[in-house]
Amino acid sequence: MDKIKTMIISGGTHGNELTGVQLIKKWTTNPELCKKRASDINLDIVLVNPSAVAVVRRYVDHDLNRSFADYMLNGAPRSLCVEWNRAQELNQMYGPKGDSTKTDLIIDIHNTESNMGVCLILSEKNAFTMRASAEIANEFSDVHIYLQPEKRTTSPYFGTIARADICVEVGPQSHGTLRASLFEKTEQVVYRYLELASEWNAGLLQQKAKKKVTVFTQHKDIDYPRDRNGNISAMIHPNLQNADYAELKPQDPLFRTFDGKDILFENDYSVWPLFINEAAYYEKKIAMSTTLKSVEEW
Amino acid sequence: MDKIKTMIISGGTHGNELTGVQLIKKWTTNPELCKKRASDINLDIVLVNPSAVAVVRRYVDHDLNRSFADYMLNGAPRSLCVEWNRAQELNQMYGPKGDSTKTDLIIDIHNTESNMGVCLILSEKNAFTMRASAEIANEFSDVHIYLQPEKRTTSPYFGTIARADICVEVGPQSHGTLRASLFEKTEQVVYRYLELASEWNAGLLQQKAKKKVTVFTQHKDIDYPRDRNGNISAMIHPNLQNADYAELKPQDPLFRTFDGKDILFENDYSVWPLFINEAAYYEKKIAMSTTLKSVEEW
Repeated sequence: MDKIKTMIISGGTHGNELTGVQLIKKWTTNPELCKKRASDINLDIVLVNPSAVAVVRRYVDHDLNRSFADYMLNGAPRSLCVEWNRAQELNQMYGPKGDSTKTDLIIDIHNTESNMGVCLILSEKNAFTMRASAEIANEFSDVHIYLQPEKRTTSPYFGTIARADICVEVGPQSHGTLRASLFEKTEQVVYRYLELASEWNAGLLQQKAKKKVTVFTQHKDIDYPRDRNGNISAMIHPNLQNADYAELKPQDPLFRTFDGKDILFENDYSVWPLFINEAAYYEKKIAMSTTLKSVEEW
Repeated sequence: MDKIKTMIISGGTHGNELTGVQLIKKWTTNPELCKKRASDINLDIVLVNPSAVAVVRRYVDHDLNRSFADYMLNGAPRSLCVEWNRAQELNQMYGPKGDSTKTDLIIDIHNTESNMGVCLILSEKNAFTMRASAEIANEFSDVHIYLQPEKRTTSPYFGTIARADICVEVGPQSHGTLRASLFEKTEQVVYRYLELASEWNAGLLQQKAKKKVTVFTQHKDIDYPRDRNGNISAMIHPNLQNADYAELKPQDPLFRTFDGKDILFENDYSVWPLFINEAAYYEKKIAMSTTLKSVEEW
């Protein structure tokens, strides 16, 4: 990506993640707050799933942030599903997903109930998103980088209809609520991305020295233990609650059954869990996502 | 209340409050865990709102724990509303609310996303619930007593169809999730109530020395500041987040606007807020419930 000409700042992809919903409301009323920081960029402020925002739920019919794979956007007939229709609509307006997309960069704001601070999720190793995220991870406290590489055509995330994307995932915040400290920090992180995008366009960011960053790279998701009916039969172990980004060693306690027994982590090597005990992931059969940790120069 | 002959332990009154839902599942499978602690009492284990539990939502049509006022149980025709029907059904089975009720005591388990530890909510000054709660508040750490006196006939809570009731309100836990530490503590608190009910029936609890307890008595609810359209225009102030039970003094910061301005607490005296930033109360227009604090002998 040579220059970032078109960009989207978005929130409300999930209707009960209120940091993004409220920031988008603020910026829609006063777009200059964003535009003045990147006046060379054609910027849209987008509330991604207004139907879900209206009912303060993650989604109405289907998770919108799992609706942007190629086959969903192109193959499927228009359906009764609110989110699949909305995905096709967004893809027409801001895509189409692929080389001819109208949008260079999407920054999509999300919340998690897990203790993840501000987590910058990169869907691939893109020159701009790596450099800018490395700057931000060094400038702010409690900001982490999560690399979740996926094949772009099959990836179902909203951000993938643009040439590049960053998901800004902020917690811990219960869905349907707002935490002032997280609202204000997210706002500053997004402003900084806008400034850095403008610096990138001017060739300035490329001249800065690379920064050392800790990178958490997606490894494997772990589901809850379940009984023969598919119901969970254990909870996140108390030691793991709120311990996102901390090392989980082989034989560390992983789950606690309803009868008080510990289930250990049976593995040959350590992992670093994220999204521990996120409510929205119970239905996705994810108790936590595990990552591998590395230090890199970005 | 001379003796506790009939008693209900209940959960899932709100379908996304999983501590109670999961404990009720455990005890339904293995009722002896409860019964052996109060073998002199006729005990029922009740999942209060199975329809809401099935969809992991607070309620389907209407908050079931706001459906037990006299006029809802008696006056209203049977409606299409899932919860009003369920309230009438429960009232027939375990009530009817009033002097001729079949149930002496209900212990109803709830969760909150607020930082409230285990909060024992008493709907009136009842001899048994005061004595037993005072014992438990002294035996366990991070257990508090919240007195929320209401006229029983107009009170909409499930517990009020019994002669006496205690709501065990446990947090912080995001709705739709489970925290092992809170699950286990709640289980122990309920077991202790069962033992104390049995001690009460034997006349033993009455002979014990009264205990000094801190009582938080319901004072006034405070709503969020709102704009002319009714939308919230500020968030809980960062100093107040997680500060349940702490003193809020006149002129302390109360809210933070989306533009970063502080709104102060304009009052002549201190209060002690509970249920700070609970998601389920945004729709009820409650940013927090304030209480007055006292030390009493119970």
